[in-house]
Amino acid sequence: MHLDELPTPALLLDRPKLERNLTRMADRARRLGVRLRPHVKTHKSIPIGSRQLELGACGITVSTLQEAATFADAGFDDVTWAFPVILSRLDELARMADRIRLDVLVDSLVAVEALESLERPVSVFLKVDCGYHRAGVDPASPLARKLAHRIEGSGRLRFAGLLTHAGQAYHRRGREALLEVARQERDRLVELAEALRADGIAVPTVSIGSTPTMSIVDHLGGVDEIRPGNYAFYDLSQVVFGACEVSDCALTVLASVVSAQPGSRRGVIDAGALALSKDAGPTDLGHDVMGALFADYDAGRLDRARRLVGLSQEHGLVEGDFTVGERVRVLPNHSCLTAAQFDTYVVVEGDTVVDRWPIARQR
Amino acid sequence: MHLDELPTPALLLDRPKLERNLTRMADRARRLGVRLRPHVKTHKSIPIGSRQLELGACGITVSTLQEAATFADAGFDDVTWAFPVILSRLDELARMADRIRLDVLVDSLVAVEALESLERPVSVFLKVDCGYHRAGVDPASPLARKLAHRIEGSGRLRFAGLLTHAGQAYHRRGREALLEVARQERDRLVELAEALRADGIAVPTVSIGSTPTMSIVDHLGGVDEIRPGNYAFYDLSQVVFGACEVSDCALTVLASVVSAQPGSRRGVIDAGALALSKDAGPTDLGHDVMGALFADYDAGRLDRARRLVGLSQEHGLVEGDFTVGERVRVLPNHSCLTAAQFDTYVVVEGDTVVDRWPIARQR
Repeated sequence: MHLDELPTPALLLDRPKLERNLTRMADRARRLGVRLRPHVKTHKSIPIGSRQLELGACGITVSTLQEAATFADAGFDDVTWAFPVILSRLDELARMADRIRLDVLVDSLVAVEALESLERPVSVFLKVDCGYHRAGVDPASPLARKLAHRIEGSGRLRFAGLLTHAGQAYHRRGREALLEVARQERDRLVELAEALRADGIAVPTVSIGSTPTMSIVDHLGGVDEIRPGNYAFYDLSQVVFGACEVSDCALTVLASVVSAQPGSRRGVIDAGALALSKDAGPTDLGHDVMGALFADYDAGRLDRARRLVGLSQEHGLVEGDFTVGERVRVLPNHSCLTAAQFDTYVVVEGDTVVDRWPIARQR
Repeated sequence: MHLDELPTPALLLDRPKLERNLTRMADRARRLGVRLRPHVKTHKSIPIGSRQLELGACGITVSTLQEAATFADAGFDDVTWAFPVILSRLDELARMADRIRLDVLVDSLVAVEALESLERPVSVFLKVDCGYHRAGVDPASPLARKLAHRIEGSGRLRFAGLLTHAGQAYHRRGREALLEVARQERDRLVELAEALRADGIAVPTVSIGSTPTMSIVDHLGGVDEIRPGNYAFYDLSQVVFGACEVSDCALTVLASVVSAQPGSRRGVIDAGALALSKDAGPTDLGHDVMGALFADYDAGRLDRARRLVGLSQEHGLVEGDFTVGERVRVLPNHSCLTAAQFDTYVVVEGDTVVDRWPIARQR
């Protein structure tokens, strides 16, 4: 089937670009001497996760226990749940840890005590804050050492190591700024690991990673594992961060113009908040840029004359000259959230539909 | 099951509040002398749609053909697809029009011509812009009359009437401002209907409605049908608009605190963008208010000391004093988009789970 025959809105996944993105990061991890444990929250897709394993990934990272279950059902048996343990899901966590190798993470004494109450020993990362200030213990705090000692010495838990995510990269722009964050992410974790080892604590794994920092970091001495996710698809935000080019972006939304009043220079497309998500992207984009239209997809060129300025539930509001029935291709601000609004990837090569892959967005 | 036993995040639907909201709008439509055709994009739920019919609704409004299919499968046979016809879905539209009574809407000659090309006659509303400036023809323009004449005289189409949605209400605040929009929505449509009738065109139905305008409008003389949707649940945005009170809001997200660093006055809950959606709400809320925490749900009292300031994919960032493991109840900015992030309503009465209803969010 040709793209022109597809009902819209449709979530298009460019297989050659996906393959190139997956291969590049796999090669990069090998060159940097670290294991790659990709975050599958971006794609929630068995075929893509399987391809990541074929290309050498050591396992996967998930953001929810539902994702863990989806991938475990498909035979994935080495999973890190990279979200602070949810105490209301301890039973589900224990059942999953019986099925597969599951590493979880904590940043509080309350969570450590809860995990110790389980019948089976669980493998636990200490979540460290390397400057993002979302979750994680301050690596310079007494709490960081206290929790590491507690986990390692508990007798009821296995200490998996240290884990961080430099989400602050999403607030920086350009190669130098990203490189500074990438070094901070690496150095804070490696320093804490060395301090703990000097205290006699074995730190099996030092795990770091965000797509922008891992796309750019200069070396990873002292790091064992990286966990980027978005790199499979990239998106407009990653272009703005300086982590990729427009031509690297593998995920787009195909939409139709459904309304365009004569003389108004505005229109409506059939991709709204439930296609693109209402992620406003980095503040540089402005709160009225909800994605970008392509002028020429094959050339990787965005439209500068026509803009996507707003989203309601099913309506995308566009400015510029449009014709009813015209098809447009949208580069989303945030591919992870866009993918999670659909049930299916329409897999394409050029203008041809070559496959359809389900998206496991259960909640 | 008690709420305290529920794994989080969970989408809670307060059945007594839902019932009260549904009853109130049904009564209001009767008092105003109009038919009620609720928009089911808000809930995407068969049990709720069925209850709306029991309470007197004349049919339903949908935003997508997938929604139409879900409800048609459950026996709903009178549906208005309130979105400008998507030309890439004409086959699907024609199949649906063979199954049920389906009214569609257009605001362009291109769409009229496309519908005329179908083998079966289709029932068509003219979509009118009453001041929102999203889709719809300007009621004062020659195009409005031209399209109405064209549809009525086509011989291939049935003219269903005029339809509008006063989305501009979402940019107004307080009773007086909303009332002004509600009158505008009503008067522009009624005036156009009268002008067309004076031209000899039969206008079977004048259909208007948004939740804020229909919650407040003073009379509906000349209007046949209203199509509010959000009123089933309401949300924080509707409270800000002045369309409801906090105690009317039936949909909340139950979340757990998963991280709270000592002394930091910040924390993380397990309801992020894929639970609440990244709808930033009306600008009055500020771009850093992604929903509100309840201080006391039963008293309808929001927390003024603790705030939800940001969302990433699965993380909700909160400010204030929090304890890991603590449960919080979140009032979303926009209940329609929040519901569409979940598969299931956990139906509650007080603190007790009484049912679970699926959410048809297929795309």
